[in-house]
Amino acid sequence: MQRPGGRSARVRSAVHTAVLELLEARSWEELSVPLVAEVSGVHQATIYRRWGTMSALLNDVVNEWSASTASLPRTGSLRDDLHIYAAAVAKSLRDGNVPLILRAVVLEIHPGERRKASPAFVERERQLQLMLDQSEERGEAVPTLTELLELVVAPLYFYALFTEPRTEAEAARLVDRLLDIVAHRGPDATAASS
Amino acid sequence: MQRPGGRSARVRSAVHTAVLELLEARSWEELSVPLVAEVSGVHQATIYRRWGTMSALLNDVVNEWSASTASLPRTGSLRDDLHIYAAAVAKSLRDGNVPLILRAVVLEIHPGERRKASPAFVERERQLQLMLDQSEERGEAVPTLTELLELVVAPLYFYALFTEPRTEAEAARLVDRLLDIVAHRGPDATAASS
Repeated sequence: MQRPGGRSARVRSAVHTAVLELLEARSWEELSVPLVAEVSGVHQATIYRRWGTMSALLNDVVNEWSASTASLPRTGSLRDDLHIYAAAVAKSLRDGNVPLILRAVVLEIHPGERRKASPAFVERERQLQLMLDQSEERGEAVPTLTELLELVVAPLYFYALFTEPRTEAEAARLVDRLLDIVAHRGPDATAASS
Repeated sequence: MQRPGGRSARVRSAVHTAVLELLEARSWEELSVPLVAEVSGVHQATIYRRWGTMSALLNDVVNEWSASTASLPRTGSLRDDLHIYAAAVAKSLRDGNVPLILRAVVLEIHPGERRKASPAFVERERQLQLMLDQSEERGEAVPTLTELLELVVAPLYFYALFTEPRTEAEAARLVDRLLDIVAHRGPDATAASS
């Protein structure tokens, strides 16, 4: 909706940085456009004109994260790829801005409304499916994308949200269990599991 | 902090009901003590005196849910117990107040702070461990509590938060996969997995 670059890009960056700082330091009750204005040094009127509401602003922060998700590893071994990927998920849930982004995602859940998968999740799933497809072409026994999400990603997010984020070693354990399950059923049984 | 029963209990109930209605109908930006007062018909001053902040009020709603969690099934078969339990989790994530409570739990996450497991989760885990212990005493091959949480509960919550809540049939599929994993390693290998 705005031309990229120049003043517009600087304003967006300052405002996003302020939102992440506030998500980290303040209770959700305190999040507000006036406070974002104060922390970012951008005029309230500018923020209201560009984003409209605090809620729309949070969505924009989430979308920017989506656009900047790193590409996945391609080591030539599915186990290595998955270890690197799961360690990166665990690490991002332990530090950096992802827990804050996750919090913004959840703040934007509107109960009773049909969810729209965030662009970040859609793109990440596309990349993971590609990783699995390439592994299958190499003749490896592969899990389905659903299995990968349920057995590795879901527990990491569950722990990060409701108890304590897990270590990279714990993430590796989840990957190894997934691959054990796949190994038990052999390379030709993948289709039967979905 | 307040004596139970009488006017105090009626006020608490009216205020909690109003919070759940607002969590369902409004954006988090709109949640406020004045709005709770308006919807519940309880004076703002009373709410401030009793709970202090909107955040403390949300915590109280979560704690009441915790105290009222239903007891778990005891059918004499772990598979049946787990099917009933997982179906109940899936159902509660599809309708009722649990998605709203879950939203309140996440609103109360303070990034960077060490998490304290909610009393609801602690009590539920205690009950699940008891279910597993009783099954093991009957000579069944049982998963660890960690496996149950990671392979059944975590995916159900993950889907409910980030995509779509799953059906009872999907919950049953998660239970069956868990028990397949346990069956593959046999009844004496439980300890090796934790």
